[in-house]
Amino acid sequence: MKALRFISGELKLADHQEPNTASEAKVRVLKSGICNTDLEIVRGYAGFEGTIGHEFVGVVEESADSPELIGKRVVGEINVGCGACELCVSGDARHCPERTVLGIKGRDGAHAEFLTLPARNLIEVPETVIDEQAVFAEPLAAAFGITEQVDVFADTRVAVIGDGKLGILCALSLGLRSRNVMLIGRHRAKMAIAEKQNIEGVLASDAAKLGFFDVVVEASGSESGFATALDLVRPRGKIVLKSTFHGKPQWEAWRVVVDEITIVGSRCGRFKPALQLLANKRIDISDMISDEFALADGLRAFEAAGSKGVMKVLLTMK
Amino acid sequence: MKALRFISGELKLADHQEPNTASEAKVRVLKSGICNTDLEIVRGYAGFEGTIGHEFVGVVEESADSPELIGKRVVGEINVGCGACELCVSGDARHCPERTVLGIKGRDGAHAEFLTLPARNLIEVPETVIDEQAVFAEPLAAAFGITEQVDVFADTRVAVIGDGKLGILCALSLGLRSRNVMLIGRHRAKMAIAEKQNIEGVLASDAAKLGFFDVVVEASGSESGFATALDLVRPRGKIVLKSTFHGKPQWEAWRVVVDEITIVGSRCGRFKPALQLLANKRIDISDMISDEFALADGLRAFEAAGSKGVMKVLLTMK
Repeated sequence: MKALRFISGELKLADHQEPNTASEAKVRVLKSGICNTDLEIVRGYAGFEGTIGHEFVGVVEESADSPELIGKRVVGEINVGCGACELCVSGDARHCPERTVLGIKGRDGAHAEFLTLPARNLIEVPETVIDEQAVFAEPLAAAFGITEQVDVFADTRVAVIGDGKLGILCALSLGLRSRNVMLIGRHRAKMAIAEKQNIEGVLASDAAKLGFFDVVVEASGSESGFATALDLVRPRGKIVLKSTFHGKPQWEAWRVVVDEITIVGSRCGRFKPALQLLANKRIDISDMISDEFALADGLRAFEAAGSKGVMKVLLTMK
Repeated sequence: MKALRFISGELKLADHQEPNTASEAKVRVLKSGICNTDLEIVRGYAGFEGTIGHEFVGVVEESADSPELIGKRVVGEINVGCGACELCVSGDARHCPERTVLGIKGRDGAHAEFLTLPARNLIEVPETVIDEQAVFAEPLAAAFGITEQVDVFADTRVAVIGDGKLGILCALSLGLRSRNVMLIGRHRAKMAIAEKQNIEGVLASDAAKLGFFDVVVEASGSESGFATALDLVRPRGKIVLKSTFHGKPQWEAWRVVVDEITIVGSRCGRFKPALQLLANKRIDISDMISDEFALADGLRAFEAAGSKGVMKVLLTMK
């Protein structure tokens, strides 16, 4: 089968063997989405080798454990725990120390004609959610997951730093809870996507005028993002760290102590609520798709995804 | 009156005018305690000039607003808000942006024969709490305040990093909630103080063998403390930052995101619960007092307080 593989520091469109299905479900991928994490892997920042990609929608072709899934259109939770440790047994495979992660860690990913995942990781997609939307289930779950970690009410003042894909999804998700969400970015065109859905866009250069926020989400992935978050959060407020920035920024820990700020690290979220948001049309991701390529044009797709001003780039396997 | 004043980079025993009492209560100080923050001020790290000291017990001599306080033995909340801003009105003067702080910021402090504070800041000391104990109300409130920010239950695994005064008070406070509190330090003699009260002391060099903790309190004030905390906390666990370390340590923000760790900045706590702990003899601070000096020997007291292995040094004003 065709697969986009990152091997020895190079991204290649390879002819790779179809995955083994002995203990997992085999999924024929319909579409996949290129994430910033994919771009970081290709830049060599993440120490991963193999087929990349972790945002997908597909159809189950084989599943020995759960034959009822065969033929179903699914998305998939990307963390696969060992199944035996304390965390896995308590239902938190996402933090299993031995976990593999689809297309990110120890497990071939989704930019390929087929992938495998344990049947328990697969979630059926409601009929009303089209493929282009379903591909967003993973990043939307990650964004909406914030609402399960931090209380956000109608009058909670929220700032989201970063007008990339993740920042916009965070702003839209939090906008379902609060009337007071601002997206702080550097690109009017990107912020306009969120502004169509009742989020206020503010240029980063104007952020200092905004006063204090109860909750600040750092989704820019830039070294300055955390410092900006500290400047914007009120005493006893919360900063949600959302981007897995791989630098080692300095921080003024004493400010966190003096202002008694809480910092919440946030990575993944649950897929079912995200699919429901898409099914109920509470979040519209259509403006976030910049382009779509065939898997055979995967290298061009990656080039496009890394270009300035480009939002989500999809791959289609047909 | 005599007062220990830090002026132009130098600590001096000065003859200073008695404080003005127009709008505040005047307190005759009985004893005060030397805190690490005092030592940092004297090292010039905090930008404060004036009479230092913020841990005290005293007797109210004048109080126009609340004459019923006159003659009462009191301790005092050290933050004085403007009284008018949103935070003050909501009852959180501790974070008022215009606040003064006794002996720390914009307000003469407690290493003196007299101090003033608004009557609303004063809390009467129960008769059964002797002066030497009452001086610990402020640091104990700060330590016990953690239990109001983070859930700690009988089986919560807690590590406290740092065997200084603050670390020991944190360990003792959390030991009232959990049976599983370890104090991680470098000094067997200091850890022994906590070990007498059912805390397990562990040398920092052995910390890596301890497995993961649900809650890790960083109270060492050292640059390596936060990195150690990250190594010890379990995924989805909490790190409480307790020391106002004035360096700018680097941090691996991505680990906080990937392991979805929560970091809680923690500075002050409420005095009443702390006084109750002392009154009910639930925490014994007697082993923590290394020495006691007359105010007239204040410079020698500061020398002693900064010496290796020394815990709390008290000043007595009589």
